[in-house]
Formats: sequence, C-alpha cells, structure tokens
Amino acid sequence: MTLETLKTQRAFGGTQGNYRHQSEAVGTPMELAVFQPSAERHPGPRPVVWFLSGLTCTPENFVVKAGAQRVAAELGLVVVAPDTSPRGVSLPGDTEHYWFGQSASYYVDASAAPYSEHYRMFQYLSAELPALVAEHFPVDMSRQAVSGHSMGGHGALLLALRQPGRFRRVSALAPIASFTTCPWGELAVERYFGGDLAAAQAFDPTCLLQGGASLPSTLIDQGDADPFLKEQLRPEVLQQALTARGVDHRLRLQPGYDHSYFFVATFVEEHLRFLAEAF
Amino acid sequence: MTLETLKTQRAFGGTQGNYRHQSEAVGTPMELAVFQPSAERHPGPRPVVWFLSGLTCTPENFVVKAGAQRVAAELGLVVVAPDTSPRGVSLPGDTEHYWFGQSASYYVDASAAPYSEHYRMFQYLSAELPALVAEHFPVDMSRQAVSGHSMGGHGALLLALRQPGRFRRVSALAPIASFTTCPWGELAVERYFGGDLAAAQAFDPTCLLQGGASLPSTLIDQGDADPFLKEQLRPEVLQQALTARGVDHRLRLQPGYDHSYFFVATFVEEHLRFLAEAF
Repeated sequence: MTLETLKTQRAFGGTQGNYRHQSEAVGTPMELAVFQPSAERHPGPRPVVWFLSGLTCTPENFVVKAGAQRVAAELGLVVVAPDTSPRGVSLPGDTEHYWFGQSASYYVDASAAPYSEHYRMFQYLSAELPALVAEHFPVDMSRQAVSGHSMGGHGALLLALRQPGRFRRVSALAPIASFTTCPWGELAVERYFGGDLAAAQAFDPTCLLQGGASLPSTLIDQGDADPFLKEQLRPEVLQQALTARGVDHRLRLQPGYDHSYFFVATFVEEHLRFLAEAF
Repeated sequence: MTLETLKTQRAFGGTQGNYRHQSEAVGTPMELAVFQPSAERHPGPRPVVWFLSGLTCTPENFVVKAGAQRVAAELGLVVVAPDTSPRGVSLPGDTEHYWFGQSASYYVDASAAPYSEHYRMFQYLSAELPALVAEHFPVDMSRQAVSGHSMGGHGALLLALRQPGRFRRVSALAPIASFTTCPWGELAVERYFGGDLAAAQAFDPTCLLQGGASLPSTLIDQGDADPFLKEQLRPEVLQQALTARGVDHRLRLQPGYDHSYFFVATFVEEHLRFLAEAF
C-alpha cells in the first residue's frame, strides 16, 4: 500500500507527520496524522496508540490542540490520529448537520445505500489502516491501545469491543455512550443503516457490552460542565453497562470541565500514561 | 476600566478566559486571553507572564496550540496573551500583506497618519493593558516577565528594552532581530513611520541594544529549519548586539525545528520555567 507524505515537522524531539493514501475500504483518499518519538531515544519498534476524534474534527484538532506529543515523546509511543469520515465524496445530506455525514461517520460500516459504498470506517480502522501503519512505520503491533474524544470515545470503545485482543488498554474522553439512543445518532441510524436498529446496535458500545462483548482495563473521563453531558453523552448509561459486564474500569466526572480540547489537553497525559502502563 | 468576560473554560485546574475592553490607546475594542491557575493551589497575587504572538495571529493561537497552561498551572503563573494589532478599524493596505497592518503591528507606536491614530500598540502594552490586568486579576505586578514568538519575540525584547525594571526575565522564540532591516518590516517603516528610519529604530530591539538599552537575563530559542531564519529573523544580528551590550543571555539553535507552534509548544515549558525562576 502506498503512503504519501504531505508534511513532517519536528516536535518534542520526534516527528509529527501528515500522510495521505488511497483507501480501499472507503474508496476515497484518506489523510492521517502520525507522531513518531525520537528514534535515538526510543529505538526499535514502538507501541502504538490510536486516537479517534469527535464530530466536526479532522486529524488536525487533536494534533494541534491536545499537546499529546510531549507525553508520547517521553513514553516512546507512536500516536496515530485517523480522519473522522471518508473525504472527497459528496452524498445526500452529508454536510447539513454537524452530527451526520462528513466528520460524523460514527466509525461504523454503513449498510444502506448510498452511504454503504463509502462510509466503511469500521473496516478502515479495524483492518486497512492498521496494515498500512504496520507497513510504513516502526511500530510493534503486539502493543496497541486506543483512545478518543466524544464520537471518537465511542469509536475507541467500539473498536476494542469488536476486536478483542487487539488493544491492551482503552481510554475515552467524554465518549458518546450509545449513539443509537441519543439525538446526535438519529440520522446515523436512519441513513447509515436505513433505520435498521439491530444493524446499528452492532456498532453501539453500550449495546455491545449488553450483548456480552467486553473490554480490557478502561479509563474514562467526563467533564461535569459539558453541555452535551445529559442529552448526548450519558456516561451513566455506559457506566451501568460496564459495571454489569464486569469490565475493569474507572469513569470519573471532572468538575468544571466542558467538552472542549482544553478538557482533552488537561487529561490526555494521564490517559496516555494509563495506556502505556500496559506496554 | 471596564473588562467584559467573553468566555471562561476550565483548563489544568485553572481558568482560561477570553476578555474584551475598549482601549484608549488604540481607540478600538481589544480582546485578550488570560490563564489563571487554581486559586486553591496558588492563593494570593500571582506573578504574570506576558506572551506576545507573531504575524497572522490573534491571542487564540498561543492559547490553543502552545500547551502553556499546564506549566503555568504548576508554577502558579497568570499568563496574558494580548492581541497583535488594533481590531475593528480598516486602514489603507492593512490586509494586503500578512506582514503589515492587521495582526502585524510590530507592537510599535506609529507616527505617520493614518496609522498613528490606532497603531499605538507600544502605548497599549506598556501602560494601558498592565493597568487593566492589575485592576481585574489577582496579579503581583512586582513579578512580571515577558515572552513572545516571531514578531512577538521582537515585541517581548522591545517592551523589556524600553521598560527597564518592569520584567525580571525575558524570553523569545524565533524573534525578529531587527524589523527595520529585514523585508518583513519594510512596509512598517514606510507606513507606520512615514519612512522615518530613526523613529522606527526606537522600536527595533537590535538598534535599542546598540543605543545602550539593556535587558535582564534572557533566553532565546530558534529552530535551525525555520524557513524565515536567514532573511527575516537573523538571530546572529541579535546575538551580536546582545553580546556587545553584555546582556546575560543564551541563544540556542534547535536542530530540525521550523517556525510553527510545534516549535513553540516544544520549548515553552523550558521558557516558562526559566522566567519563573526569577519569581
């Protein structure tokens, strides 16, 4: 698989790069951002942390705003930030609302036309992208962990629930607990799955937990001043499913924090350290 | 003086805020960003660090991209990021080039009409804004330091050179050494000062050093892969003037770093610690 380097920049003794490739899974060119720690300081294959971003985001938000490179440089982590939806195609309604379509894939494999042709982000993230990264970067794929923010928190939980054994640990910042039962996800259920709720539930972390899937040790933070807390994110729903399933987890309400990248930046260090402990 | 709070957000246990006020010095509304560390962790009046941004910037760039809040929260620093030029007025040519006019004040007091009416940023930063901040935030104005990036590095040096005794220490990241003798500054000399070179030199750090002004202990970093290094920034010119004047300083060339906020984010921690040592 070919990978084009768009830009690399030195950061914290390592390299922050932007890359592009033609994705088979989604049928469009896709960009990703990869941070590599210093090769002298951390020689040999390094563990890899996947960070999935939220609604409205591209890989750039996390890369520019979270300040994760500093900690990744210290811990010797490769951090991959994939894009949040297929790019370069225009489908009906895909830019009408920030919670559906472009930058709003929910990381699912859509089953209803016309979205099913391109919105195959689960396939992309679970198979194609890991193979691409393993081919082009000095990573140790036996040491992976996953994290994400908001829709990306949902995505991190989803990937780990459906790929048991792939990730040693999981983290999520203000994740959407159950997109099939919150207002943000209504259009996704209707259009990505043609209203087939059962098909959508196969990508819903809370439903997957209720259906018997499980997770490795998981850390979740949520700001209690987050304006999306009660209607969209609903950590109590996730908490209940995690507890019922017996998942080893901590879910913390952080007083005064909202949904922004200031919240992500504040807690990303603790999350990366939590993930790296398992490497 | 009245200060309007536009937004506050929790970050690293402290508060990142955006504020607006009507400036007498520049005759327009001006915005600024202020980080305050946790009052429980750092009670009482806190030292204040001023951070001046570069060409094309607003206060937001530093606030969102540099990750300085983490270190400021630990060290108990109030960090003030002022805007980079007057806002809300339209003057001839002020948006034609990124290196002149809006977001490109060079922090001078213009002497030529029509710029002289509003482009009074030195007056703003040296007198009005400190008084405003002292009135509205729990700061200890006997403990100040100043830093900045690119045009803001020039600004930090300029403020410290013309206000001896105000700052305990100075730092600059990729500063413009001498705007009166580099291409970026040509329009500034021509239009802010009507081509009066002597008037412009009164705001040029290298000229001020050559004229006998001095600085407290100063830390300067510069990336050696910075595309503006040789033509615009010219650290060797500054180095020579600092050495000739006997200023206690370190000027370091950092291998592989460019002019971006990845460079700023990488070194801002060391700069804040350097400044805070003097508090």
